[in-house]
Amino acid sequence: MIFRQKEIEIKAPKRGFFLITDKILESIEISDIKVGIMNLFLKHTSASLSINENASPDVRIDMEEISSKLIPDGYFYNHSLEGEDDMPAHFKSSMFGVSLNIPITNGNLNLGIWQGIYLNEHRNYPTTRKIVITISGV
Amino acid sequence: MIFRQKEIEIKAPKRGFFLITDKILESIEISDIKVGIMNLFLKHTSASLSINENASPDVRIDMEEISSKLIPDGYFYNHSLEGEDDMPAHFKSSMFGVSLNIPITNGNLNLGIWQGIYLNEHRNYPTTRKIVITISGV
Amino acid sequence: MIFRQKEIEIKAPKRGFFLITDKILESIEISDIKVGIMNLFLKHTSASLSINENASPDVRIDMEEISSKLIPDGYFYNHSLEGEDDMPAHFKSSMFGVSLNIPITNGNLNLGIWQGIYLNEHRNYPTTRKIVITISGV
Repeated sequence: MIFRQKEIEIKAPKRGFFLITDKILESIEISDIKVGIMNLFLKHTSASLSINENASPDVRIDMEEISSKLIPDGYFYNHSLEGEDDMPAHFKSSMFGVSLNIPITNGNLNLGIWQGIYLNEHRNYPTTRKIVITISGV
Repeated sequence: MIFRQKEIEIKAPKRGFFLITDKILESIEISDIKVGIMNLFLKHTSASLSINENASPDVRIDMEEISSKLIPDGYFYNHSLEGEDDMPAHFKSSMFGVSLNIPITNGNLNLGIWQGIYLNEHRNYPTTRKIVITISGV
Repeated sequence: MIFRQKEIEIKAPKRGFFLITDKILESIEISDIKVGIMNLFLKHTSASLSINENASPDVRIDMEEISSKLIPDGYFYNHSLEGEDDMPAHFKSSMFGVSLNIPITNGNLNLGIWQGIYLNEHRNYPTTRKIVITISGV
């Protein structure tokens, strides 16, 4: 039985949706795990993690446009002290979630062929984001 | 300590939200686990998994209608090459998520009395979907 | 290897978003776990769990206002028998999710400094909600 944990830092180049699958995979060893789960946990409330399409950059652009049209920036929220993008960022963080659980099979992440891990940065001026990676398995 | 994993395939009859609790339960053994977690992971980016009401078929119809009103089909997305339902499907997949974690207690899934597991098919022409089931427990 | 489970009950004072981090922490022992995961699972389909900002009460108010503007109450849903707030509650429950996975590190929940655990009550007249807490770790 293996339990393994590591905290990493990632900074998005700008607001938007970014593929971080490679960064996650190079940060922690999973090749010795036959059956298990990788948990990713983002320690922030104005960004999020999700699984989405790993091929077309247009999908990442659309994810930003659709989510920011659904939950528009503005100073009309009660919580507006930290900027017009802050409350929408909190909402998106809960809508997409800050935690992912991905199966490990025979030493590899068992993602679908089109799946990638996204860091979704919802603030206009990104800061460094911390992600805790926890592996459990046998 | 038990770690057990199985990959299954399900095809929705059409676009929409479908109860798959029975299909999951008949696919893997959990009766020997006293305390544990079942992880379900859908290996696709245009469908999703969620927990919702298991009794009224109207809830499944409304889930489809509300989500498709929120994120309408259309060719106005950047990513429209694969059809007017494709980008909305990617968005819904991240909004609802592709992974579920359900507690196991005394050999059974510890779902609430009204809870069922849904496969949410967001494409007009469903294809076969793969779900990895991972059990951990004692 | 530790697997530990407990079911607790919480009742929100009214419809809305409420911090329950302290209630969760006082309900189960985690101080003996060096590396692990806490899973929270809400056994209901008209409420949800999420991680969000733990400081400003305005964020909780905005979460309620934004989500209820996105998915308005009404009798225009197919499933309206249980009230105008019932179907929107089911949708929000799947949008935010009923399950959280939070890393445990050196005997503590490894939350970000601004993160708290929310119970999101989506019904007008709250009932007692059951949450299953499952701890795994070493």
